[in-house]
Amino acid sequence: MEKIYDLIIIGSGPAGLCAAIYAQRAKLSCITIEKNYMSGGQVINTYEVDNYPGLPGINGFDMAEQFRAHAEKLGAEFTEAEVEKIELMEKDIKKIVAGDKEYYAKAIIIATGAKHRTLSVKGEEQLAGMGVSYCATCDGAFFKNKTVAVVGGGDVAVEDAIFLARGCEKVYLIHRRDELRAAKILQEAALKEEKILPVWNSVVTEITGAERVESVKIQNVITKEEQQLSVDGVFVAVGILPNTELFQGLVAMDNNGYIQAGEDGRTSVEGIFVAGDVRTKQLRQIITAAADGANAVTSVQEYLIQYDKTWRKL
Amino acid sequence: MEKIYDLIIIGSGPAGLCAAIYAQRAKLSCITIEKNYMSGGQVINTYEVDNYPGLPGINGFDMAEQFRAHAEKLGAEFTEAEVEKIELMEKDIKKIVAGDKEYYAKAIIIATGAKHRTLSVKGEEQLAGMGVSYCATCDGAFFKNKTVAVVGGGDVAVEDAIFLARGCEKVYLIHRRDELRAAKILQEAALKEEKILPVWNSVVTEITGAERVESVKIQNVITKEEQQLSVDGVFVAVGILPNTELFQGLVAMDNNGYIQAGEDGRTSVEGIFVAGDVRTKQLRQIITAAADGANAVTSVQEYLIQYDKTWRKL
Repeated sequence: MEKIYDLIIIGSGPAGLCAAIYAQRAKLSCITIEKNYMSGGQVINTYEVDNYPGLPGINGFDMAEQFRAHAEKLGAEFTEAEVEKIELMEKDIKKIVAGDKEYYAKAIIIATGAKHRTLSVKGEEQLAGMGVSYCATCDGAFFKNKTVAVVGGGDVAVEDAIFLARGCEKVYLIHRRDELRAAKILQEAALKEEKILPVWNSVVTEITGAERVESVKIQNVITKEEQQLSVDGVFVAVGILPNTELFQGLVAMDNNGYIQAGEDGRTSVEGIFVAGDVRTKQLRQIITAAADGANAVTSVQEYLIQYDKTWRKL
Repeated sequence: MEKIYDLIIIGSGPAGLCAAIYAQRAKLSCITIEKNYMSGGQVINTYEVDNYPGLPGINGFDMAEQFRAHAEKLGAEFTEAEVEKIELMEKDIKKIVAGDKEYYAKAIIIATGAKHRTLSVKGEEQLAGMGVSYCATCDGAFFKNKTVAVVGGGDVAVEDAIFLARGCEKVYLIHRRDELRAAKILQEAALKEEKILPVWNSVVTEITGAERVESVKIQNVITKEEQQLSVDGVFVAVGILPNTELFQGLVAMDNNGYIQAGEDGRTSVEGIFVAGDVRTKQLRQIITAAADGANAVTSVQEYLIQYDKTWRKL
């Protein structure tokens, strides 16, 4: 008989690592499966994190390493593998197929995070972290009194523009249509803010810069006219994609692919929990992802008491 | 006309300090009112905090100082005063009376935390942090292979006993009645655990020890018989008390005095938000308190957009 873990955590960003820390402290038998060593989540690509209390101004990579070291100090076990499939077995056991191995657990925490949609234009990848950002809340403060562009027209893009206008000199809001998709109330707030300059019917065709972002090239989708705007930063807010392809049909999700759960992390399936950006929630930040990890382990502990009561006798 | 802040935060534990950090980053005009410098919340009295990701094994006081320094580095403003009253004014302005001063804000975050109920017996206060603990999740790991006592009979006491039994040699569960108040399922789990030794119908009369806890004196409430148990730690789990006396009649609370709110921190009153232990929630930890602070500020930002839309024209 294969080993049956109390808990398997999938993903090693802040949510997964905090769950690993709490699982160790709760003395659960637990392993964390990560795609590669220090998958670490989106935080790894963050130039500077200044909103995780107690670690001001830390580099994203260093922060991920500190979380990791913390979990390892407590004895957390990790393995590198790409999860391919989760199956529900007899006696509420969950089987995880990852690479050429199979793992078994009473409970699972899905902490696979999300990835930001990209523009897929020239310069974007090369300048990521050097002026190209996917998170105004994370990086906005570094562009004080500078000129930036926000790309997108949804709630997040408009919120980002409003947020950035508080500190930036000028904020271009580049949107491919002639009206915003964002909630009316946000639109009104943005459009009456003088520092926000909407650039309608336009798409970004290239981001330029030698060592840091220097400009964006845009094209008007109607007139086909091209122009170049000098900017110090480009905030891409064209949506994010939760990493949940694997779990479709397994747990309930909302229309955007987020796994439905409250702050206790309980999904539609008993014994499967969720933590971090992958969950339906208001605010996706490192601090809230980490809190999710702690909450999910608490729910796992309650579940395991019930689990053992049900199955120990069988 | 007095200054009207966007936001006033009441309390400077992890929830209040994280809210202050997020408010600074959102460029809100904000002040945090604290009872005294570094009120800091319960964390200040925690011997060692080992479950806040990124800061393993940190002393509670040092941690509170790091949070504080982080907020101050970002320019957060603090004032020492004891809040006496909150009044709702015209135009949704909130007035806070604190000491001989009055403060005005569009939004408030209540982050006043909770205090643990004490036993009020000899030795308890002197040995707090030296073997006397009010949080098994926080401190349990430091009693590996030791003998401890848990005092209480409710859910938390029994959960604590189960949690402690995973690492401790022996766990006395001292309760003043002959049956537990905790949920049946927890009771069953505890009573079948061999390391947990229930001590029925008994109350603690004294905690003894020179530099650290050495024993508890208990008395049987029926036979009046006294005995002394050698223990390395005493976990007091006779309930906690949210610091919400001041807000009674202002916002909706549950039967235990916690302010009712989901993870977004919205209370029953528009523009009054809540964060941390003082909120109705599953898990009261530093990491979840801090996350609350971030979530509450996000809700405040949304509220302020609406607020300005409603009142700017008046």
